[in-house]
Amino acid sequence: MRIALAQLNPTIGALEKNAEKVETYYRKALEDGAELVVFTELSLSGYPPKDLLLYDSFLQRERELITGKLMPLTGDGNPPLLIGAAHRQDGKLYNGALLLENGQVKAVHLKTLLPNFDVFDEERYFTRCSNRQVEMVGDLAVGITICEDIWNDEDFFPEQLYDLDPNKILFGQGAKLLLNLSASPYHLGKHKLREDMLSFLAKKYRGAIIYLNQVGGNDELVFDGSSLVYNNRGELIYRAAAFGEELFFIETEDLFRPADNIVPPGTDDINTVREVLTLGLKDYVRKTGFKKVILGISGGADSAVVAALAAEALGAENVLGVMMPSRYSSSHSIEDAEALAKNLGFEVRMHRIGEPFDAFIKILNEGGKPLQDLAEENLQARIRGNIIMHISNREGYLALATGNKSELAVGYSTLYGDMAGGLAVIADLPKMMVYELANNINEVSGREVIPARTITKPPSAELRPDQKDEDSLPPYHILDPILHHYIEENLAAADIVDRGFDQDTVDKVIQMVDRSEFKRRQAAPGLRITTRSFGAGRRMPIARGYDL
Amino acid sequence: MRIALAQLNPTIGALEKNAEKVETYYRKALEDGAELVVFTELSLSGYPPKDLLLYDSFLQRERELITGKLMPLTGDGNPPLLIGAAHRQDGKLYNGALLLENGQVKAVHLKTLLPNFDVFDEERYFTRCSNRQVEMVGDLAVGITICEDIWNDEDFFPEQLYDLDPNKILFGQGAKLLLNLSASPYHLGKHKLREDMLSFLAKKYRGAIIYLNQVGGNDELVFDGSSLVYNNRGELIYRAAAFGEELFFIETEDLFRPADNIVPPGTDDINTVREVLTLGLKDYVRKTGFKKVILGISGGADSAVVAALAAEALGAENVLGVMMPSRYSSSHSIEDAEALAKNLGFEVRMHRIGEPFDAFIKILNEGGKPLQDLAEENLQARIRGNIIMHISNREGYLALATGNKSELAVGYSTLYGDMAGGLAVIADLPKMMVYELANNINEVSGREVIPARTITKPPSAELRPDQKDEDSLPPYHILDPILHHYIEENLAAADIVDRGFDQDTVDKVIQMVDRSEFKRRQAAPGLRITTRSFGAGRRMPIARGYDL
Repeated sequence: MRIALAQLNPTIGALEKNAEKVETYYRKALEDGAELVVFTELSLSGYPPKDLLLYDSFLQRERELITGKLMPLTGDGNPPLLIGAAHRQDGKLYNGALLLENGQVKAVHLKTLLPNFDVFDEERYFTRCSNRQVEMVGDLAVGITICEDIWNDEDFFPEQLYDLDPNKILFGQGAKLLLNLSASPYHLGKHKLREDMLSFLAKKYRGAIIYLNQVGGNDELVFDGSSLVYNNRGELIYRAAAFGEELFFIETEDLFRPADNIVPPGTDDINTVREVLTLGLKDYVRKTGFKKVILGISGGADSAVVAALAAEALGAENVLGVMMPSRYSSSHSIEDAEALAKNLGFEVRMHRIGEPFDAFIKILNEGGKPLQDLAEENLQARIRGNIIMHISNREGYLALATGNKSELAVGYSTLYGDMAGGLAVIADLPKMMVYELANNINEVSGREVIPARTITKPPSAELRPDQKDEDSLPPYHILDPILHHYIEENLAAADIVDRGFDQDTVDKVIQMVDRSEFKRRQAAPGLRITTRSFGAGRRMPIARGYDL
Repeated sequence: MRIALAQLNPTIGALEKNAEKVETYYRKALEDGAELVVFTELSLSGYPPKDLLLYDSFLQRERELITGKLMPLTGDGNPPLLIGAAHRQDGKLYNGALLLENGQVKAVHLKTLLPNFDVFDEERYFTRCSNRQVEMVGDLAVGITICEDIWNDEDFFPEQLYDLDPNKILFGQGAKLLLNLSASPYHLGKHKLREDMLSFLAKKYRGAIIYLNQVGGNDELVFDGSSLVYNNRGELIYRAAAFGEELFFIETEDLFRPADNIVPPGTDDINTVREVLTLGLKDYVRKTGFKKVILGISGGADSAVVAALAAEALGAENVLGVMMPSRYSSSHSIEDAEALAKNLGFEVRMHRIGEPFDAFIKILNEGGKPLQDLAEENLQARIRGNIIMHISNREGYLALATGNKSELAVGYSTLYGDMAGGLAVIADLPKMMVYELANNINEVSGREVIPARTITKPPSAELRPDQKDEDSLPPYHILDPILHHYIEENLAAADIVDRGFDQDTVDKVIQMVDRSEFKRRQAAPGLRITTRSFGAGRRMPIARGYDL
């Protein structure tokens, strides 16, 4: 049997458009001799549709498109179509896979394991279905599962999040092939984890596995495709593109014989991070209806990296950099910003912030003289935010925030100032990773796109004379691992100290993290890279005591 | 038996402080002859503790306080103590009620129904427990339940969210008294709903019910106390304070005989809204460690209402109003703002925004002349935001945002401008309700605290000459019900039109709501009043298609 697998990039909520895309790919697959055509989890709504699922009208329209547009495709002896869709049954809503055949719904398979941790909220919308049945597709026994359904193996994971294991149930019923319809977002290390687990499962059950993933950016989440096919020896025989749509075909006989060529295992590294961010940025801009972006260019590494990513994602002609020097800005800041713009080929403008700053000081400070306090540092950052937003509002640019995860974590950033923007591109990258990415950008470009001095000079907000980040923060090579332990691993201060960090430093960092929750609550959405990103991935109270 | 019930106001995460409060109230109850002392759901962490529950160290510390501080209280023949706490068992975490007696944990009752809709995320943290057992307290059979456990009666609600009903199970086992440890936040209509249901349950099962609720504001949520006691005839025999801590006592024999005095049913109205907002504001300020607040005073109804609430919550001496007229501000705006400040007795300052605005225009507009476009309207709002934040940062005021739900819904507000602030006090009040509240404030004050003209004049942002809200928006008496149908009831455009609204107006409003999601994502937390508030109550994608 020839199975076609469509790894697509839907737009959340665009039911019509997504259904058209499904139809287009179904027809392509048909032309190429497919005998079954498979699409990903919640294909018509895109994943995650969030509270759109609470609108009856949304669910009805989705069902109408399945009934009116997709089911008819499978008539006239055309191949069956397997697609992820919300499914109402007995007054409850399920996350389902519908098998459409001969113009009918031949079978419905409903998700058992509903992720409700980290960025996921599936218990908010769906009911768990514990009843799973193997599906006969031709004479092949297929276990049809949805995303999280495969992630609960008792031999692979030290702890089980759920009582049931659909893999075990379906292979136990005699499935020869496990077909998983996913929408599984990227985080660092996910590639290896995913492949290790799938290979393990295929070997354990001596069954073949096809893992079909969504691709593309949806708000904070970037889905990295990389759909995978394992034969029943656990050999990886195909891996689809990581960052683009792809229609690929599998002959089922290839699933049950030794591989001719085993695909080498995948890993992810700083190159993957770069591509994830580029795709996430590109899709956010496209799917919000923008074409061009604006950002402040300081001569520092953060804005340089974001500018390079934006130029890669959208073309340099769609990037506008704004230099906004203050009286405390060094000459190298402007030189480095200009060099960056020249190297990448994007437009820059210069708006010095001195005059608006003086005008504020005149009305705010008695005597009209600057006090050079923290409030005035913030004010300068907010004047810059105003300028960026003004050009954004007037000329239709999407504003990009350029803050990194380290500063967002400790609150070393100005709310409504440098935090302003529609998308925070590197908000989930610790500062040390920003440097790594800056070097990587230069490496893959084969030239110094980001000026060397931008990467090597001590980081500074340049909001007061001779300011350096390290005046206020531990050095980033110490700060970043402390933040990793506290935020990604949920370790307490004592446990972090046990890992070799200074008690006072750890206490100070944790206090800074806890007390800046109010800033993060109002931060722009940031593209997720790590296992614990701010936003929906970490939900913290603001008004709280600090006994932790 | 004499039962003491402690309706307390914990601070989220302040385990030590909350445990001390529990001890204090336990000792008070002891002195007053209590034979059982009861506390609310998750008393030591406060509700909702959110992702603090993902920190092992947090759970350990909570358990240490129970073991080291609370259990010993119940030795020496002292009465048992029943308290809500997170409970780990067999590697899983439950939302539990612990019965401490004779220095030991005598019994553990674990929550069955975990709310995971609206603002609630309990499936993120806890495991459901389906096993429920009646507890013998003395010779009284008591069904001990936790909050949501009581909210699934098949005869009271047209639809059941859950398969199990702990009430049915426990009364089925012979419970005579149902004791519910709650942390149930306020929304409009909740009082009546709660009382109707509890009275219904007591009658249905011919059982007594004690419903003990948390009180106080925790970020967006305000817990409105109003703990209730029903005898086994369904008569309400006691209702605790709605907006304060209270320790009260029930003699169990009073639960099983006709009431001497039936407490009249509770309802909530605009007075309740006022008190909820006052408590929410007061607790947010207190629990974030602030004492005083700052807000922009425009002469309009929104800022007047917020100022009045702040003066009530914190004392006028802790309120600073800032008038920030532009060249488009009318003379009555300043007069009305000054009259308000005088009536309420808070300090006002004036900072005209003309000079900073001109300085921006000089550097941003070629020729240095204003264009009077939308970008310049936003710029003026952001200059005001800067001034508020500057004084906030410099002088330690918490900034209050004054936007209402109607403008937040349709995006008729400036991100980083009038939306700036740490708490959005009336963000969940439709504009018509703001007027109702303004009138209510004057009524309860017995004088014109809010100037009549502030309430009667046509609302305007005064960001361009002769601007009125109605130039851009439908009149609020039409806008507000459309928003109610779309946001609170999740109705589609067609269904709203069916309720008698103009198609074009409905389409325009829905489009405005959908396209301003990016602003709401960066909005300050807002106190919840309705059944569907923005923030965690409504989780929408930003980058999306619009087929809905």
